[in-house]
Amino acid sequence: MSAPLQIVALLFPNVTQLDLTGPAQVFTRFPEAELHFAWESLDPVPTDSGFSILPTVTLGETPQADVLFVPGGQGAFDLFEHEAALNFIARQAAGARYVTSVCTGSFALGAAGLLRGKRATSHWASLQMLEAFGAVPVSERVVQDGKIITGAGVTSGIDFALTLAAELCSPEVAKEIQLFIEYDPAPPFDAGSPSRPDADQQAARDRIAAITELRSPLVQRAAARIPSILLP
Amino acid sequence: MSAPLQIVALLFPNVTQLDLTGPAQVFTRFPEAELHFAWESLDPVPTDSGFSILPTVTLGETPQADVLFVPGGQGAFDLFEHEAALNFIARQAAGARYVTSVCTGSFALGAAGLLRGKRATSHWASLQMLEAFGAVPVSERVVQDGKIITGAGVTSGIDFALTLAAELCSPEVAKEIQLFIEYDPAPPFDAGSPSRPDADQQAARDRIAAITELRSPLVQRAAARIPSILLP
Repeated sequence: MSAPLQIVALLFPNVTQLDLTGPAQVFTRFPEAELHFAWESLDPVPTDSGFSILPTVTLGETPQADVLFVPGGQGAFDLFEHEAALNFIARQAAGARYVTSVCTGSFALGAAGLLRGKRATSHWASLQMLEAFGAVPVSERVVQDGKIITGAGVTSGIDFALTLAAELCSPEVAKEIQLFIEYDPAPPFDAGSPSRPDADQQAARDRIAAITELRSPLVQRAAARIPSILLP
Repeated sequence: MSAPLQIVALLFPNVTQLDLTGPAQVFTRFPEAELHFAWESLDPVPTDSGFSILPTVTLGETPQADVLFVPGGQGAFDLFEHEAALNFIARQAAGARYVTSVCTGSFALGAAGLLRGKRATSHWASLQMLEAFGAVPVSERVVQDGKIITGAGVTSGIDFALTLAAELCSPEVAKEIQLFIEYDPAPPFDAGSPSRPDADQQAARDRIAAITELRSPLVQRAAARIPSILLP
């Protein structure tokens, strides 16, 4: 009997919680898998949505991940200054079969030095900034480059997790999970990406400009620090 | 200045967490709204996905909801025996502008006597059992009958919450939230409902049979008890 698949998600303050909880609903139905939410202590971690989630394990006691998963949100940018978290990501990534993210979680992967030369995606409003980490930004919902799999913004985590289910388990398992979570989407509008007809194009451009102004200096600084935080 | 919109979600043990966290991501971006997770104490509540979420308020201290929201999961059926929770639902529903659910959360609404003569939906595997509560089961992703709005299984909560955003706030607000959460779904398979080509029809039928056998006696018993738990 083989050991259960270890899926390790990083749970940090101010995470965009659906980045994490969408994939978690899918992961938890993988056959023979254990899902861990790792953070520095077991105290409740506040999310972006006004409620808190409990970690299941501390960074120091987390088993080696088969799948390392980093969600996004404003908190992902705070990780740039959190050396223990970046070291955790780099260390876990070295032994993982898959290194994954959703939304701006890819920025934490980038800050841990994992995206150099890699095709990767992120939330549409931040995507181009991934270049600072040497990544090749790709505007697709799920992007795989070797063992790195990244998802675009927030809800794309569900598509990402089902894609991983198909690859890691089987297409049959992925379809069964999709049926269980009744993922037969019917959005009331066609506004889910800036290119869609119901999306407010000007608002999207404004948002990208505002986010770039706010986050770009953080990203540049994190990119400049990459060598010093990498483990040998 | 008007008071903020009060959105009250019931958070109970063994909730299918994405039923709750999907809508929560949308609700939290409603302008001028407060989101509460209500349960009997503030202790962590275990979800179906191996992690726990903290309530933000106790049942007794919850403000009157403008929007009452009940997610689903196996735990929703345990609510049938939880008189305080059913009374909470009935009492809150009486003063709410909208009474809502996702997935099998509609069974808790039914057990609280709120679905008699109402069109309502639920997870596909349990849908027909809603008849026991006098409801008219409707196989659609989001169903509105007056102030009752119900969503189908798990991920339909995102479509439900965006529909509510459009109705309660405006279509513009709903589209803006949809763009922010990049809800431009691209499922890897077309397997999200039993009628879809990639879905395993036999497995779906087996699942309905198994669930009906397990839950039908509970539902029948809860339906028979409705009058006794209703508040005057």
